[in-house]
Amino acid sequence: MTNFFRANVDAMASYVPGEQPKRGSQVIKLNSNENPYPPSPKALAALQNIDGEWLRRYPEPFGDQFRHAASQVLKVPSDWIIVGNGSDEILNVVMRACTEPGRKVVYPTPTYVLYRTLTEMQAADVVEIPYTQDYQLPVAELIAVDGAVTFIASPNSPSGHVVPSADLEKLASQLSGVLVIDEAYVDFAEADALALVKDYENVMIIRTLSKGYSLAGLRLGFGIAQPKLLQGLFKVKDSYNIDAIACTVATAAITDQAYKNACVAKIKASRTQLTKEFQQLGFQVWESHTNFLLVQPSQQNAAYLYQKLKEQQILIRYFPHPGLLDKLRITIGTDEQNQILVNAIKALL
Amino acid sequence: MTNFFRANVDAMASYVPGEQPKRGSQVIKLNSNENPYPPSPKALAALQNIDGEWLRRYPEPFGDQFRHAASQVLKVPSDWIIVGNGSDEILNVVMRACTEPGRKVVYPTPTYVLYRTLTEMQAADVVEIPYTQDYQLPVAELIAVDGAVTFIASPNSPSGHVVPSADLEKLASQLSGVLVIDEAYVDFAEADALALVKDYENVMIIRTLSKGYSLAGLRLGFGIAQPKLLQGLFKVKDSYNIDAIACTVATAAITDQAYKNACVAKIKASRTQLTKEFQQLGFQVWESHTNFLLVQPSQQNAAYLYQKLKEQQILIRYFPHPGLLDKLRITIGTDEQNQILVNAIKALL
Repeated sequence: MTNFFRANVDAMASYVPGEQPKRGSQVIKLNSNENPYPPSPKALAALQNIDGEWLRRYPEPFGDQFRHAASQVLKVPSDWIIVGNGSDEILNVVMRACTEPGRKVVYPTPTYVLYRTLTEMQAADVVEIPYTQDYQLPVAELIAVDGAVTFIASPNSPSGHVVPSADLEKLASQLSGVLVIDEAYVDFAEADALALVKDYENVMIIRTLSKGYSLAGLRLGFGIAQPKLLQGLFKVKDSYNIDAIACTVATAAITDQAYKNACVAKIKASRTQLTKEFQQLGFQVWESHTNFLLVQPSQQNAAYLYQKLKEQQILIRYFPHPGLLDKLRITIGTDEQNQILVNAIKALL
Repeated sequence: MTNFFRANVDAMASYVPGEQPKRGSQVIKLNSNENPYPPSPKALAALQNIDGEWLRRYPEPFGDQFRHAASQVLKVPSDWIIVGNGSDEILNVVMRACTEPGRKVVYPTPTYVLYRTLTEMQAADVVEIPYTQDYQLPVAELIAVDGAVTFIASPNSPSGHVVPSADLEKLASQLSGVLVIDEAYVDFAEADALALVKDYENVMIIRTLSKGYSLAGLRLGFGIAQPKLLQGLFKVKDSYNIDAIACTVATAAITDQAYKNACVAKIKASRTQLTKEFQQLGFQVWESHTNFLLVQPSQQNAAYLYQKLKEQQILIRYFPHPGLLDKLRITIGTDEQNQILVNAIKALL
């Protein structure tokens, strides 16, 4: 076969998302950090009000209905918001607007593996700087690289920690490129970095409805930045990237803060409980500001436990990457799911 | 402001889609080639069956439910199908996989303006070769360029003509790069080029549910090519590019061929009628194999008519591009809408 593809595309590996069991299967799925509770009843009700006329026509190109609602909730102007087909699309758009061969993309590791995939796709230069053992951000090293794009996931996956806002502000003030603060898990944390957007024209905050709002299947993420930064991104995004249904359902979901907060409170309580259970098993557990736990089994048998649990239809996440070979990432499920998991692990120890 | 963007992104203009009047406004919208009839009742019924569990979880990464249904309808294997967030996303993914600075992208003009936008985005070399006056494909010139990607929209917009399959086969057999045959409007034509995919590993056919299936607001397009070509494209697309709702609704829509065919039959009948009406007004009308007409007013007042109709809340499309300055592109509406349009034009002549 003739080689149709760019050399960097040929060379790159695909991003591998967490396994997706078929609809209706009895798997306990704790591998992709989905929220165990259903979406807001108001979001589901919004589905019932969608009529054919909305589907027949092209959607509004910027997702203005959702931008307006998010603007109210977050207290930022609606023209500071870009809406995407999942936050992955926002990451993708930032990369296509700002990076190319010869430009650097830098981020601390371990973190969201997609940053590497997207950098390879652009044939830009990947610069990975490891976190310290206790997940301190390598601030000086990141500033020294001064990438065209610097990615910081906060709270981070798979570690679950939040990057101190002083560190983020130091980056924002000293980097000349774009600082993307990926807050996919922020709904489960106590603090966020949204205030930085107002002070720094190079900062973009990224949010998603996949985690806190239980809408991973809807594909709705968004970015918050000053309009001058968004202008370049709007050139690159597909004209009609947000479908009319997603826009409507997401608007209802983000407007229902009370429901989201109640789900988050339940998950945080379960997180505290599950942390104790793992500690009682002798596992090391990192403090989590997310809806998952990073744990290290005392017997150094992470891969074994992952595999054995999978055989029992319990999916958790094992990353075959340096620094993570002895650890497992486990999504917080319902209390019932968490108990089944703990019991299954106990039986394997 | 520091310049965050790549030079080509700074330099490029945004793609400008047709105007989108607000929901509920009384505009007669004949500017974006939307289908005037609602989506299949079965597609709308599918919406009612979506439950929270489908939205809580990440969607199936390849849109397999839709691929299976499309495979049945089109008689191609389901692993020859790539599903996108609108066919624009498929075009975008092809460009990101196959083009870069120094590679050529070639297409006959006038055609879909997005091809140029996407090429500029990749900083690849744009090669535009004009159609002859009577829309004969410049086959030899296209072959001589031998681009990394060659785009042929067939049926084409804004001309409405179908490219003869012999011309397409000549391209397929002689090009070493990818030949994208964009069949967005194929549901309104008598012939298609699907058979070429079986014989040529460099051919990709692109389809959409936006036109024939009245689902522009849903964002669901797809490509058909041999699995070896799709493999590189799957690396580049976002992991979860198809939301769970769109996949389900689109599956119901493509399965209901009877409904789609009935709508298409009505539109074709209206097309014949509207063609006659314009001819009676002395307009030149190009033969259309789409759901729109390209017309040239006898008085050389295309821009004036466009503007005056807009003032009366009737939107049609005027392209301020060479070769199109004296023409108008008019979507086929319902017979009632078409009559209002014709009467409004008569009053302006």
